[in-house]
Amino acid sequence: MKRPFLATALVVGLLASLPATAQFQKPADAVKYRQSAFSVMGTHFGRIGAMVQNKVPFDAAALAANAEIVATMAKLPFAGFVDGTAEGTKALPVIWTQRAKFDAGAEKMQAAVLELNAAAKTGDMAKIRPAFGAVGTTCKGCHDDYRD
Amino acid sequence: MKRPFLATALVVGLLASLPATAQFQKPADAVKYRQSAFSVMGTHFGRIGAMVQNKVPFDAAALAANAEIVATMAKLPFAGFVDGTAEGTKALPVIWTQRAKFDAGAEKMQAAVLELNAAAKTGDMAKIRPAFGAVGTTCKGCHDDYRD
Repeated sequence: MKRPFLATALVVGLLASLPATAQFQKPADAVKYRQSAFSVMGTHFGRIGAMVQNKVPFDAAALAANAEIVATMAKLPFAGFVDGTAEGTKALPVIWTQRAKFDAGAEKMQAAVLELNAAAKTGDMAKIRPAFGAVGTTCKGCHDDYRD
Repeated sequence: MKRPFLATALVVGLLASLPATAQFQKPADAVKYRQSAFSVMGTHFGRIGAMVQNKVPFDAAALAANAEIVATMAKLPFAGFVDGTAEGTKALPVIWTQRAKFDAGAEKMQAAVLELNAAAKTGDMAKIRPAFGAVGTTCKGCHDDYRD
């Protein structure tokens, strides 16, 4: 039995809509997962930042590769914010009492990341720089409110 | 100035060809990066395994989404195996004395992951199961030889 080809964006969207609690065997797994996903995302976002800030030479292909990875990673960590996983982490308990607001912040970041990915593909630093800044603003917004 | 659209596969390939040493500010960053990338990859590979092994119901869309993420993650961790980063980790020093063999093992895994991703898109468990097993064999191959 064959099924039709499933577009990546569609299936990733479906995955993101699964109940987070069903995806991890124990709370510590969820914590490790979200921290790992943020860490990989941060590494690649930082490489874009180094070029945007002229700390390393602008390499359009490398920047676009980093933006593509960031776009994939940005979808992942939020499934790891399962109930009862604040303790011993930098995640503030307010995440779970303001979950709708937290999720809205995540979606804002994901949207900004898609804009950055599109800008990166143009190879035009005049488009990439503001798109990078817009992502950074969404990162900071959530870190200020929800991270210790 | 605009540049032509850069295909994802191409730019990810270019990124992977950058010298690994240039990509991390300090050895600990490289270690954290590779461990994080493997961790995220393992989470999503494990979710495929749970379906392949009938521990959770087969959901073709979710399985394909997981396979797509695994395919992205599989390209990342090896840049993190920079010189002098065995200590305090499970990575065995022999990685750096047999680097060509280690890299060949990584490429074998990456090729098997692409096969799994293609199989996952068919939604046909008769194709997915052997492709999953083939990836598992490549994982085990390197873990046996290069991980404590």
